[in-house]
Amino acid sequence: MPLHGQHDPGHPDPLMRPMQGMRNKVRRALFHFCWALLCRPTPNPMHRWRCFILRRFGARLGKNNFIYPTAKIWAPWLLETGDVATIASNVNLYNVGGVFIGHHAIISEEAFLCGATHDFQDPEFPLVSKRIEIGPYAWICSRAVMLPGVRAGEGAVLGAASVATRDLQDWTVYAGNPARAIKPRDAAAKPDLAAPR
Amino acid sequence: MPLHGQHDPGHPDPLMRPMQGMRNKVRRALFHFCWALLCRPTPNPMHRWRCFILRRFGARLGKNNFIYPTAKIWAPWLLETGDVATIASNVNLYNVGGVFIGHHAIISEEAFLCGATHDFQDPEFPLVSKRIEIGPYAWICSRAVMLPGVRAGEGAVLGAASVATRDLQDWTVYAGNPARAIKPRDAAAKPDLAAPR
Amino acid sequence: MPLHGQHDPGHPDPLMRPMQGMRNKVRRALFHFCWALLCRPTPNPMHRWRCFILRRFGARLGKNNFIYPTAKIWAPWLLETGDVATIASNVNLYNVGGVFIGHHAIISEEAFLCGATHDFQDPEFPLVSKRIEIGPYAWICSRAVMLPGVRAGEGAVLGAASVATRDLQDWTVYAGNPARAIKPRDAAAKPDLAAPR
Repeated sequence: MPLHGQHDPGHPDPLMRPMQGMRNKVRRALFHFCWALLCRPTPNPMHRWRCFILRRFGARLGKNNFIYPTAKIWAPWLLETGDVATIASNVNLYNVGGVFIGHHAIISEEAFLCGATHDFQDPEFPLVSKRIEIGPYAWICSRAVMLPGVRAGEGAVLGAASVATRDLQDWTVYAGNPARAIKPRDAAAKPDLAAPR
Repeated sequence: MPLHGQHDPGHPDPLMRPMQGMRNKVRRALFHFCWALLCRPTPNPMHRWRCFILRRFGARLGKNNFIYPTAKIWAPWLLETGDVATIASNVNLYNVGGVFIGHHAIISEEAFLCGATHDFQDPEFPLVSKRIEIGPYAWICSRAVMLPGVRAGEGAVLGAASVATRDLQDWTVYAGNPARAIKPRDAAAKPDLAAPR
Repeated sequence: MPLHGQHDPGHPDPLMRPMQGMRNKVRRALFHFCWALLCRPTPNPMHRWRCFILRRFGARLGKNNFIYPTAKIWAPWLLETGDVATIASNVNLYNVGGVFIGHHAIISEEAFLCGATHDFQDPEFPLVSKRIEIGPYAWICSRAVMLPGVRAGEGAVLGAASVATRDLQDWTVYAGNPARAIKPRDAAAKPDLAAPR
Protein backbone atom coordinates (compact mmCIF):
# COMPACT_ATOMS: atom_id res chain seq x y z
CA MET A 1 0.00 0.00 0.00
CA PRO A 2 1.52 3.34 -1.01
CA LEU A 3 0.97 5.69 1.93
CA HIS A 4 1.72 8.95 0.18
CA GLY A 5 -0.64 11.18 -1.78
CA GLN A 6 -2.56 10.76 -4.96
CA HIS A 7 -1.96 14.13 -6.62
CA ASP A 8 -0.35 13.73 -10.04
CA PRO A 9 0.56 16.74 -12.27
CA GLY A 10 -0.12 14.80 -15.49
CA HIS A 11 -3.50 13.33 -14.53
CA PRO A 12 -6.41 13.84 -16.99
CA ASP A 13 -8.82 14.59 -14.12
CA PRO A 14 -8.07 18.17 -12.95
CA LEU A 15 -9.14 17.38 -9.38
CA MET A 16 -6.36 14.78 -9.30
CA ARG A 17 -3.71 17.37 -10.16
CA PRO A 18 -1.93 19.40 -7.45
CA MET A 19 -3.07 23.03 -7.12
CA GLN A 20 0.42 24.31 -6.36
CA GLY A 21 3.85 23.43 -7.68
CA MET A 22 6.28 21.34 -5.62
CA ARG A 23 8.50 24.37 -4.88
CA ASN A 24 5.58 26.28 -3.33
CA LYS A 25 4.47 23.24 -1.32
CA VAL A 26 7.92 22.60 0.11
CA ARG A 27 8.43 26.25 1.00
CA ARG A 28 5.06 26.41 2.77
CA ALA A 29 5.66 23.11 4.57
CA LEU A 30 8.98 24.48 5.82
CA PHE A 31 7.35 27.69 7.04
CA HIS A 32 4.45 25.90 8.74
CA PHE A 33 6.89 23.57 10.48
CA CYS A 34 8.90 26.55 11.77
CA TRP A 35 5.78 28.44 12.85
CA ALA A 36 4.40 25.38 14.70
CA LEU A 37 7.71 24.87 16.46
CA LEU A 38 9.02 28.39 17.07
CA CYS A 39 5.98 30.70 17.11
CA ARG A 40 2.76 28.90 17.99
CA PRO A 41 3.99 27.94 21.49
CA THR A 42 5.22 31.47 22.28
CA PRO A 43 3.42 33.76 24.77
CA ASN A 44 1.24 36.50 23.24
CA PRO A 45 3.63 39.41 24.01
CA MET A 46 6.45 37.97 21.86
CA HIS A 47 5.28 39.87 18.77
CA ARG A 48 8.76 41.00 17.74
CA TRP A 49 10.02 37.44 17.64
CA ARG A 50 7.14 36.24 15.44
CA CYS A 51 7.60 39.23 13.09
CA PHE A 52 11.28 38.35 12.90
CA ILE A 53 10.43 34.77 11.80
CA LEU A 54 7.82 35.98 9.30
CA ARG A 55 10.36 38.39 7.77
CA ARG A 56 12.84 35.51 7.38
CA PHE A 57 10.17 33.90 5.16
CA GLY A 58 9.72 37.00 3.04
CA ALA A 59 6.95 38.95 4.78
CA ARG A 60 7.26 42.71 4.30
CA LEU A 61 5.98 43.99 7.65
CA GLY A 62 5.73 47.52 9.00
CA LYS A 63 6.89 48.45 12.48
CA ASN A 64 5.08 47.40 15.65
CA ASN A 65 2.86 44.69 14.20
CA PHE A 66 0.83 42.51 16.58
CA ILE A 67 0.66 39.03 15.09
CA TYR A 68 -0.68 36.42 17.53
CA PRO A 69 0.66 32.86 17.92
CA THR A 70 -2.44 31.05 16.63
CA ALA A 71 -2.83 33.18 13.47
CA LYS A 72 -2.65 30.96 10.36
CA ILE A 73 -0.71 32.53 7.49
CA TRP A 74 -0.68 30.59 4.21
CA ALA A 75 2.47 32.14 2.76
CA PRO A 76 4.41 34.95 4.54
CA TRP A 77 6.08 36.02 1.26
CA LEU A 78 2.64 37.11 0.05
CA LEU A 79 1.94 39.28 3.09
CA GLU A 80 2.62 43.00 3.33
CA THR A 81 1.60 45.23 6.24
CA GLY A 82 1.93 48.83 7.38
CA ASP A 83 2.90 49.97 10.89
CA VAL A 84 0.81 49.01 13.94
CA ALA A 85 -1.17 46.32 12.07
CA THR A 86 -2.84 43.54 14.08
CA ILE A 87 -3.53 39.91 13.11
CA ALA A 88 -5.36 38.37 16.06
CA SER A 89 -5.72 34.83 17.41
CA ASN A 90 -7.05 32.15 15.08
CA VAL A 91 -7.23 34.45 12.07
CA ASN A 92 -7.10 32.43 8.83
CA LEU A 93 -5.03 34.38 6.31
CA TYR A 94 -5.39 32.37 3.11
CA ASN A 95 -3.28 34.84 1.14
CA VAL A 96 -2.83 32.92 -2.13
CA GLY A 97 -3.27 36.08 -4.20
CA GLY A 98 -1.41 38.31 -1.75
CA VAL A 99 -2.74 40.28 1.20
CA PHE A 100 -1.98 43.89 2.09
CA ILE A 101 -2.93 45.19 5.55
CA GLY A 102 -2.58 48.95 6.00
CA HIS A 103 -1.23 50.78 9.03
CA HIS A 104 -3.47 50.76 12.14
CA ALA A 105 -5.71 48.12 10.53
CA ILE A 106 -6.98 45.27 12.73
CA ILE A 107 -7.94 41.74 11.72
CA SER A 108 -9.78 40.36 14.77
CA GLU A 109 -10.09 36.82 16.18
CA GLU A 110 -11.20 34.05 13.83
CA ALA A 111 -11.59 36.40 10.85
CA PHE A 112 -10.95 34.77 7.48
CA LEU A 113 -9.30 36.49 4.53
CA CYS A 114 -10.10 34.07 1.70
CA GLY A 115 -7.72 34.87 -1.14
CA ALA A 116 -8.61 32.21 -3.70
CA THR A 117 -11.52 30.44 -5.33
CA HIS A 118 -11.98 28.18 -8.35
CA ASP A 119 -13.58 28.95 -11.70
CA PHE A 120 -16.42 26.45 -11.30
CA GLN A 121 -17.80 27.19 -14.77
CA ASP A 122 -14.65 25.71 -16.30
CA PRO A 123 -14.31 21.88 -16.32
CA GLU A 124 -10.61 22.39 -15.56
CA PHE A 125 -11.73 23.96 -12.24
CA PRO A 126 -8.69 26.29 -12.22
CA LEU A 127 -7.58 28.00 -9.01
CA VAL A 128 -8.29 31.74 -9.21
CA SER A 129 -6.34 33.73 -6.64
CA LYS A 130 -7.08 37.39 -5.98
CA ARG A 131 -5.33 40.00 -3.86
CA ILE A 132 -7.14 41.25 -0.73
CA GLU A 133 -6.41 44.77 0.52
CA ILE A 134 -7.30 46.17 3.91
CA GLY A 135 -6.93 49.94 4.08
CA PRO A 136 -5.33 51.90 6.92
CA TYR A 137 -7.48 52.18 10.10
CA ALA A 138 -9.87 49.49 8.78
CA TRP A 139 -11.25 46.90 11.19
CA ILE A 140 -12.25 43.40 10.13
CA CYS A 141 -14.13 42.27 13.25
CA SER A 142 -14.05 38.80 14.76
CA ARG A 143 -15.23 35.88 12.65
CA ALA A 144 -15.84 38.15 9.63
CA VAL A 145 -14.96 36.94 6.11
CA MET A 146 -13.41 38.83 3.17
CA LEU A 147 -13.96 37.05 -0.16
CA PRO A 148 -11.27 36.87 -2.89
CA GLY A 149 -10.39 40.22 -4.46
CA VAL A 150 -12.39 42.30 -2.00
CA ARG A 151 -10.85 45.59 -0.84
CA ALA A 152 -11.68 47.30 2.46
CA GLY A 153 -11.24 51.06 2.15
CA GLU A 154 -9.56 53.34 4.68
CA GLY A 155 -11.29 53.17 8.05
CA ALA A 156 -13.92 50.65 6.85
CA VAL A 157 -15.46 48.38 9.50
CA LEU A 158 -16.74 44.88 8.70
CA GLY A 159 -18.92 43.78 11.64
CA ALA A 160 -18.47 40.53 13.57
CA ALA A 161 -19.36 37.40 11.58
CA SER A 162 -20.20 39.47 8.48
CA VAL A 163 -19.21 38.42 4.96
CA ALA A 164 -17.84 41.00 2.50
CA THR A 165 -18.62 40.03 -1.09
CA ARG A 166 -17.82 43.47 -2.55
CA ASP A 167 -15.44 46.32 -1.83
CA LEU A 168 -16.04 48.24 1.38
CA GLN A 169 -16.06 52.02 1.04
CA ASP A 170 -13.84 54.30 3.13
CA TRP A 171 -15.07 55.16 6.64
CA THR A 172 -18.23 53.06 6.35
CA VAL A 173 -19.57 50.32 8.64
CA TYR A 174 -20.88 47.07 7.13
CA ALA A 175 -22.70 44.09 8.63
CA GLY A 176 -24.61 40.95 7.64
CA ASN A 177 -24.17 38.08 5.20
CA PRO A 178 -23.88 39.38 2.55
CA ALA A 179 -22.53 42.53 4.23
CA ARG A 180 -24.38 45.80 3.61
CA ALA A 181 -23.45 49.36 4.57
CA ILE A 182 -25.26 50.23 7.80
CA LYS A 183 -23.76 53.57 8.84
CA PRO A 184 -20.86 55.97 8.31
CA ARG A 185 -17.81 56.04 10.55
CA ASP A 186 -16.28 59.31 11.65
CA ALA A 187 -13.17 59.85 9.49
CA ALA A 188 -11.61 61.76 12.39
CA ALA A 189 -11.42 58.51 14.40
CA LYS A 190 -7.78 57.90 13.57
CA PRO A 191 -6.01 56.29 16.52
CA ASP A 192 -2.58 57.67 15.71
CA LEU A 193 -3.98 61.19 15.82
CA ALA A 194 -5.44 60.72 19.29
CA ALA A 195 -4.14 63.15 21.85
CA PRO A 196 -1.68 61.52 24.23
CA ARG A 197 -3.14 60.92 27.66
CA MET B 1 -15.18 14.51 44.89
CA PRO B 2 -16.18 12.29 41.98
CA LEU B 3 -14.20 13.50 38.97
CA HIS B 4 -16.14 11.73 36.27
CA GLY B 5 -19.27 12.88 34.42
CA GLN B 6 -22.79 13.59 35.49
CA HIS B 7 -24.72 11.97 32.67
CA ASP B 8 -27.13 9.31 33.94
CA PRO B 9 -29.37 7.26 31.60
CA GLY B 10 -32.16 6.99 34.20
CA HIS B 11 -32.29 10.66 35.21
CA PRO B 12 -35.73 12.38 35.13
CA ASP B 13 -34.19 15.53 33.58
CA PRO B 14 -33.56 14.76 29.88
CA LEU B 15 -30.58 17.15 29.75
CA MET B 16 -28.94 14.98 32.40
CA ARG B 17 -29.23 11.85 30.25
CA PRO B 18 -26.50 10.90 27.73
CA MET B 19 -27.37 11.57 24.07
CA GLN B 20 -25.60 8.44 22.83
CA GLY B 21 -25.31 4.90 24.20
CA MET B 22 -22.11 3.71 25.86
CA ARG B 23 -21.19 1.49 22.87
CA ASN B 24 -21.30 4.47 20.49
CA LYS B 25 -19.30 6.65 22.89
CA VAL B 26 -16.56 4.07 23.36
CA ARG B 27 -16.28 3.41 19.63
CA ARG B 28 -16.01 7.12 18.88
CA ALA B 29 -13.50 7.68 21.68
CA LEU B 30 -11.39 4.87 20.24
CA PHE B 31 -11.55 6.36 16.74
CA HIS B 32 -10.76 9.89 17.90
CA PHE B 33 -7.80 8.61 19.89
CA CYS B 34 -6.46 6.78 16.80
CA TRP B 35 -7.05 9.77 14.54
CA ALA B 36 -5.30 12.14 16.99
CA LEU B 37 -2.34 9.79 17.24
CA LEU B 38 -2.00 8.32 13.76
CA CYS B 39 -3.59 10.80 11.34
CA ARG B 40 -3.66 14.34 12.69
CA PRO B 41 0.15 14.60 12.87
CA THR B 42 0.64 13.24 9.31
CA PRO B 43 1.75 15.47 6.40
CA ASN B 44 -1.01 16.52 3.99
CA PRO B 45 0.00 14.19 1.12
CA MET B 46 -0.58 11.01 3.18
CA HIS B 47 -4.18 10.73 2.00
CA ARG B 48 -4.01 6.98 1.36
CA TRP B 49 -2.92 6.30 4.92
CA ARG B 50 -5.75 8.34 6.42
CA CYS B 51 -8.30 6.66 4.12
CA PHE B 52 -6.89 3.31 5.24
CA ILE B 53 -7.48 4.21 8.91
CA LEU B 54 -10.99 5.54 8.20
CA ARG B 55 -11.89 2.31 6.37
CA ARG B 56 -10.71 0.28 9.39
CA PHE B 57 -13.41 2.19 11.34
CA GLY B 58 -16.11 1.38 8.81
CA ALA B 59 -15.98 4.30 6.34
CA ARG B 60 -17.04 3.32 2.83
CA LEU B 61 -14.77 5.52 0.73
CA GLY B 62 -14.36 5.73 -3.04
CA LYS B 63 -10.96 5.76 -4.70
CA ASN B 64 -8.59 8.72 -4.53
CA ASN B 65 -10.20 10.63 -1.71
CA PHE B 66 -8.39 13.65 -0.27
CA ILE B 67 -9.10 13.80 3.44
CA TYR B 68 -6.90 16.26 5.32
CA PRO B 69 -5.31 15.69 8.75
CA THR B 70 -7.30 18.35 10.63
CA ALA B 71 -10.71 17.25 9.31
CA LYS B 72 -13.02 16.30 12.20
CA ILE B 73 -15.19 13.25 11.48
CA TRP B 74 -17.74 12.32 14.15
CA ALA B 75 -18.16 8.66 13.17
CA PRO B 76 -16.39 7.13 10.14
CA TRP B 77 -18.92 4.27 9.97
CA LEU B 78 -21.55 6.84 9.01
CA LEU B 79 -19.49 8.27 6.13
CA GLU B 80 -19.77 7.20 2.50
CA THR B 81 -17.97 8.86 -0.40
CA GLY B 82 -17.54 8.46 -4.15
CA ASP B 83 -14.22 8.66 -6.03
CA VAL B 84 -12.09 11.82 -5.93
CA ALA B 85 -13.99 13.36 -3.00
CA THR B 86 -12.26 16.02 -0.88
CA ILE B 87 -12.67 16.82 2.82
CA ALA B 88 -10.39 19.78 3.51
CA SER B 89 -8.60 21.10 6.59
CA ASN B 90 -10.67 21.89 9.69
CA VAL B 91 -13.92 20.63 8.17
CA ASN B 92 -16.39 19.64 10.91
CA LEU B 93 -18.28 16.55 9.73
CA TYR B 94 -20.89 16.02 12.42
CA ASN B 95 -22.36 13.02 10.62
CA VAL B 96 -24.75 11.70 13.29
CA GLY B 97 -27.43 10.92 10.69
CA GLY B 98 -24.95 9.76 8.05
CA VAL B 99 -23.20 11.77 5.35
CA PHE B 100 -22.81 10.88 1.67
CA ILE B 101 -20.31 12.81 -0.46
CA GLY B 102 -20.54 12.12 -4.19
CA HIS B 103 -17.63 11.70 -6.61
CA HIS B 104 -15.69 14.87 -7.45
CA ALA B 105 -17.46 16.74 -4.63
CA ILE B 106 -15.41 19.11 -2.47
CA ILE B 107 -15.96 20.13 1.14
CA SER B 108 -13.63 23.11 1.65
CA GLU B 109 -11.78 24.40 4.71
CA GLU B 110 -13.77 24.98 7.92
CA ALA B 111 -17.08 23.94 6.30
CA PHE B 112 -19.55 22.38 8.74
CA LEU B 113 -21.93 19.54 7.87
CA CYS B 114 -24.31 19.62 10.85
CA GLY B 115 -26.12 16.29 10.89
CA ALA B 116 -28.24 16.57 14.01
CA THR B 117 -30.46 18.93 15.96
CA HIS B 118 -32.91 18.58 18.86
CA ASP B 119 -36.69 18.76 18.82
CA PHE B 120 -36.92 21.87 20.99
CA GLN B 121 -40.74 21.80 21.02
CA ASP B 122 -40.61 18.54 23.00
CA PRO B 123 -39.73 18.79 26.73
CA GLU B 124 -37.74 15.56 26.27
CA PHE B 125 -35.48 17.57 23.88
CA PRO B 126 -34.78 14.43 21.80
CA LEU B 127 -31.79 14.31 19.43
CA VAL B 128 -33.00 14.36 15.80
CA SER B 129 -30.33 13.21 13.38
CA LYS B 130 -30.74 13.62 9.63
CA ARG B 131 -28.69 12.39 6.68
CA ILE B 132 -26.80 15.00 4.63
CA GLU B 133 -26.10 14.26 0.95
CA ILE B 134 -23.65 16.11 -1.25
CA GLY B 135 -24.12 15.32 -4.94
CA PRO B 136 -21.34 14.56 -7.43
CA TYR B 137 -19.35 17.64 -8.57
CA ALA B 138 -20.91 19.75 -5.79
CA TRP B 139 -18.74 22.25 -3.94
CA ILE B 140 -19.37 23.31 -0.34
CA CYS B 141 -17.05 26.31 -0.09
CA SER B 142 -14.96 27.26 2.91
CA ARG B 143 -16.72 28.02 6.18
CA ALA B 144 -20.15 27.17 4.66
CA VAL B 145 -22.74 25.28 6.72
CA MET B 146 -25.19 22.52 5.69
CA LEU B 147 -28.04 22.09 8.18
CA PRO B 148 -29.46 18.66 9.16
CA GLY B 149 -31.21 16.81 6.33
CA VAL B 150 -30.16 19.24 3.61
CA ARG B 151 -29.20 17.76 0.23
CA ALA B 152 -26.86 19.48 -2.25
CA GLY B 153 -27.74 18.43 -5.79
CA GLU B 154 -25.26 17.45 -8.52
CA GLY B 155 -22.84 20.30 -9.26
CA ALA B 156 -24.43 22.64 -6.69
CA VAL B 157 -22.17 25.32 -5.20
CA LEU B 158 -22.68 26.72 -1.69
CA GLY B 159 -20.61 29.93 -1.44
CA ALA B 160 -18.07 30.68 1.26
CA ALA B 161 -19.57 31.23 4.73
CA SER B 162 -23.11 30.59 3.41
CA VAL B 163 -25.70 28.57 5.33
CA ALA B 164 -27.92 26.07 3.49
CA THR B 165 -31.26 25.65 5.25
CA ARG B 166 -32.99 23.90 2.31
CA ASP B 167 -31.98 21.54 -0.50
CA LEU B 168 -29.68 22.99 -3.15
CA GLN B 169 -30.76 22.34 -6.73
CA ASP B 170 -28.47 20.72 -9.32
CA TRP B 171 -25.94 23.00 -11.06
CA THR B 172 -27.00 26.09 -9.13
CA VAL B 173 -24.90 28.53 -7.11
CA TYR B 174 -26.10 29.67 -3.66
CA ALA B 175 -24.85 32.31 -1.25
CA GLY B 176 -25.83 34.15 1.93
CA ASN B 177 -27.31 33.29 5.32
CA PRO B 178 -29.83 31.87 4.72
CA ALA B 179 -28.44 30.80 1.32
CA ARG B 180 -30.36 31.83 -1.79
CA ALA B 181 -29.85 30.80 -5.42
CA ILE B 182 -27.79 33.51 -7.14
CA LYS B 183 -26.97 32.02 -10.55
CA PRO B 184 -26.83 28.82 -12.57
CA ARG B 185 -23.63 26.80 -13.00
CA ASP B 186 -22.72 25.31 -16.35
CA ALA B 187 -23.58 21.59 -16.18
CA ALA B 188 -20.75 20.91 -18.64
CA ALA B 189 -18.22 21.92 -15.95
CA LYS B 190 -17.47 18.34 -14.96
CA PRO B 191 -13.80 17.99 -14.01
CA ASP B 192 -13.50 14.32 -14.92
CA LEU B 193 -14.64 15.12 -18.45
CA ALA B 194 -11.98 17.80 -18.92
CA ALA B 195 -9.69 17.18 -21.85
CA PRO B 196 -6.28 15.95 -20.72
CA ARG B 197 -3.60 18.60 -21.05
CA MET C 1 16.69 42.51 19.19
CA PRO C 2 14.10 42.72 21.98
CA LEU C 3 11.91 39.64 21.66
CA HIS C 4 9.09 40.73 23.91
CA GLY C 5 5.99 42.76 23.07
CA GLN C 6 5.47 46.28 21.91
CA HIS C 7 2.50 47.32 24.05
CA ASP C 8 3.28 50.37 26.18
CA PRO C 9 0.72 51.92 28.60
CA GLY C 10 2.06 55.44 28.07
CA HIS C 11 2.20 55.41 24.28
CA PRO C 12 0.49 58.31 22.43
CA ASP C 13 -0.97 55.89 19.83
CA PRO C 14 -3.92 54.10 21.51
CA LEU C 15 -3.39 50.96 19.39
CA MET C 16 0.08 50.71 20.95
CA ARG C 17 -1.36 50.65 24.48
CA PRO C 18 -2.40 47.38 26.15
CA MET C 19 -6.17 46.76 26.35
CA GLN C 20 -5.98 45.15 29.79
CA GLY C 21 -3.94 45.86 32.89
CA MET C 22 -0.97 43.67 33.81
CA ARG C 23 -2.88 42.07 36.73
CA ASN C 24 -5.68 40.89 34.41
CA LYS C 25 -3.17 39.60 31.85
CA VAL C 26 -1.19 37.61 34.39
CA ARG C 27 -4.33 36.13 35.95
CA ARG C 28 -5.65 35.06 32.54
CA ALA C 29 -2.27 33.65 31.48
CA LEU C 30 -2.21 31.60 34.67
CA PHE C 31 -5.73 30.29 34.06
CA HIS C 32 -5.07 29.46 30.40
CA PHE C 33 -1.90 27.63 31.34
CA CYS C 34 -3.82 25.55 33.93
CA TRP C 35 -6.68 24.86 31.53
CA ALA C 36 -4.28 23.77 28.74
CA LEU C 37 -2.44 21.47 31.13
CA LEU C 38 -5.17 20.13 33.42
CA CYS C 39 -8.45 20.37 31.51
CA ARG C 40 -7.98 20.42 27.75
CA PRO C 41 -6.42 16.93 27.66
CA THR C 42 -9.17 15.40 29.86
CA PRO C 43 -11.82 13.03 28.45
CA ASN C 44 -15.27 14.55 27.85
CA PRO C 45 -17.00 12.92 30.86
CA MET C 46 -14.72 14.65 33.40
CA HIS C 47 -17.11 17.59 33.76
CA ARG C 48 -16.87 17.74 37.56
CA TRP C 49 -13.11 18.10 37.44
CA ARG C 50 -13.24 20.96 34.94
CA CYS C 51 -15.94 22.73 36.98
CA PHE C 52 -13.72 22.31 40.03
CA ILE C 53 -10.83 24.05 38.25
CA LEU C 54 -13.06 26.84 36.92
CA ARG C 55 -14.41 27.48 40.43
CA ARG C 56 -10.83 27.76 41.72
CA PHE C 57 -10.47 30.67 39.27
CA GLY C 58 -13.63 32.38 40.49
CA ALA C 59 -16.40 30.95 38.28
CA ARG C 60 -19.79 30.83 40.01
CA LEU C 61 -21.25 27.66 38.52
CA GLY C 62 -24.54 25.90 39.24
CA LYS C 63 -24.76 22.16 39.79
CA ASN C 64 -24.29 19.61 37.02
CA ASN C 65 -22.72 21.83 34.39
CA PHE C 66 -21.35 20.25 31.22
CA ILE C 67 -18.28 22.21 30.16
CA TYR C 68 -16.24 20.48 27.45
CA PRO C 69 -12.43 20.34 27.28
CA THR C 70 -12.03 22.46 24.13
CA ALA C 71 -14.30 25.30 25.32
CA LYS C 72 -12.38 28.59 25.42
CA ILE C 73 -13.24 30.78 28.42
CA TRP C 74 -11.63 34.22 28.53
CA ALA C 75 -11.94 34.79 32.29
CA PRO C 76 -13.68 32.28 34.61
CA TRP C 77 -14.20 34.96 37.27
CA LEU C 78 -16.60 36.69 34.86
CA LEU C 79 -18.71 33.56 34.28
CA GLU C 80 -21.88 32.66 36.17
CA THR C 81 -24.16 29.72 35.36
CA GLY C 82 -27.29 28.03 36.67
CA ASP C 83 -27.77 24.28 37.11
CA VAL C 84 -27.50 21.89 34.15
CA ALA C 85 -25.88 24.48 31.84
CA THR C 86 -23.84 23.26 28.86
CA ILE C 87 -20.81 24.86 27.17
CA ALA C 88 -19.91 22.57 24.26
CA SER C 89 -16.71 21.83 22.35
CA ASN C 90 -14.87 24.73 20.74
CA VAL C 91 -17.22 27.36 22.13
CA ASN C 92 -15.50 30.76 22.30
CA LEU C 93 -16.66 32.52 25.46
CA TYR C 94 -15.10 35.98 25.19
CA ASN C 95 -16.69 37.12 28.44
CA VAL C 96 -14.93 40.46 28.94
CA GLY C 97 -18.15 42.12 30.17
CA GLY C 98 -19.36 39.05 32.07
CA VAL C 99 -21.53 36.18 30.86
CA PHE C 100 -24.52 34.64 32.62
CA ILE C 101 -25.89 31.29 31.41
CA GLY C 102 -29.20 30.26 32.96
CA HIS C 103 -30.20 26.77 34.11
CA HIS C 104 -30.85 24.23 31.33
CA ALA C 105 -29.36 26.62 28.75
CA ILE C 106 -27.09 25.15 26.06
CA ILE C 107 -24.24 26.81 24.18
CA SER C 108 -23.50 24.42 21.29
CA GLU C 109 -20.27 23.62 19.40
CA GLU C 110 -18.27 26.52 17.98
CA ALA C 111 -20.77 29.13 19.19
CA PHE C 112 -19.20 32.51 19.98
CA LEU C 113 -20.32 34.81 22.79
CA CYS C 114 -18.54 38.04 21.87
CA GLY C 115 -18.54 40.21 24.99
CA ALA C 116 -16.57 43.23 23.84
CA THR C 117 -16.14 45.66 20.96
CA HIS C 118 -14.39 49.01 20.46
CA ASP C 119 -15.90 52.46 20.09
CA PHE C 120 -14.65 53.00 16.53
CA GLN C 121 -16.06 56.54 16.38
CA ASP C 122 -13.57 57.59 19.07
CA PRO C 123 -9.92 58.09 18.01
CA GLU C 124 -8.94 56.53 21.36
CA PHE C 125 -10.64 53.32 20.10
CA PRO C 126 -11.61 52.36 23.69
CA LEU C 127 -12.59 48.79 24.52
CA VAL C 128 -16.33 48.59 25.28
CA SER C 129 -17.28 45.42 27.13
CA LYS C 130 -20.91 44.42 27.62
CA ARG C 131 -22.54 41.65 29.63
CA ILE C 132 -24.19 38.79 27.70
CA GLU C 133 -27.09 36.94 29.32
CA ILE C 134 -28.53 33.63 28.20
CA GLY C 135 -31.87 32.85 29.85
CA PRO C 136 -32.91 29.49 31.32
CA TYR C 137 -33.80 26.81 28.71
CA ALA C 138 -32.31 28.95 25.91
CA TRP C 139 -30.31 27.25 23.17
CA ILE C 140 -27.51 28.99 21.26
CA CYS C 141 -27.00 26.50 18.40
CA SER C 142 -23.69 25.50 16.88
CA ARG C 143 -21.56 28.20 15.27
CA ALA C 144 -24.07 30.92 16.27
CA VAL C 145 -22.81 34.32 17.46
CA MET C 146 -24.12 36.61 20.23
CA LEU C 147 -22.87 40.19 19.90
CA PRO C 148 -21.84 42.33 22.91
CA GLY C 149 -24.69 43.19 25.29
CA VAL C 150 -27.24 40.91 23.64
CA ARG C 151 -29.64 39.02 25.93
CA ALA C 152 -31.33 35.74 25.00
CA GLY C 153 -34.66 35.43 26.81
CA GLU C 154 -35.98 32.31 28.55
CA GLY C 155 -36.28 29.41 26.11
CA ALA C 156 -35.04 31.47 23.13
CA VAL C 157 -33.37 29.53 20.29
CA LEU C 158 -30.67 31.06 18.08
CA GLY C 159 -30.31 28.80 15.02
CA ALA C 160 -27.05 27.30 13.79
CA ALA C 161 -24.60 29.84 12.34
CA SER C 162 -27.00 32.73 13.08
CA VAL C 163 -25.86 36.08 14.43
CA ALA C 164 -27.85 37.83 17.17
CA THR C 165 -27.46 41.61 16.96
CA ARG C 166 -30.42 42.40 19.27
CA ASP C 167 -32.10 40.81 22.28
CA LEU C 168 -33.90 37.53 21.65
CA GLN C 169 -37.44 37.33 23.06
CA ASP C 170 -38.57 34.54 25.39
CA TRP C 171 -39.62 31.26 23.74
CA THR C 172 -38.92 32.47 20.22
CA VAL C 173 -36.78 30.91 17.49
CA TYR C 174 -34.35 33.10 15.51
CA ALA C 175 -32.22 32.43 12.43
CA GLY C 176 -30.10 34.21 9.82
CA ASN C 177 -27.42 36.90 9.77
CA PRO C 178 -28.65 39.22 11.13
CA ALA C 179 -30.97 36.88 13.07
CA ARG C 180 -34.72 37.40 12.71
CA ALA C 181 -37.59 35.76 14.60
CA ILE C 182 -38.91 32.86 12.51
CA LYS C 183 -41.37 31.09 14.79
CA PRO C 184 -42.49 30.69 18.41
CA ARG C 185 -41.27 27.88 20.65
CA ASP C 186 -43.66 26.05 22.95
CA ALA C 187 -43.08 27.45 26.46
CA ALA C 188 -44.09 24.04 27.87
CA ALA C 189 -40.91 22.53 26.40
CA LYS C 190 -39.01 22.69 29.67
CA PRO C 191 -36.67 19.71 30.00
CA ASP C 192 -36.66 19.62 33.78
CA LEU C 193 -40.44 19.27 33.78
CA ALA C 194 -40.38 16.28 31.44
CA ALA C 195 -42.01 13.17 32.85
CA PRO C 196 -39.43 10.57 33.86
CA ARG C 197 -39.28 7.70 31.37
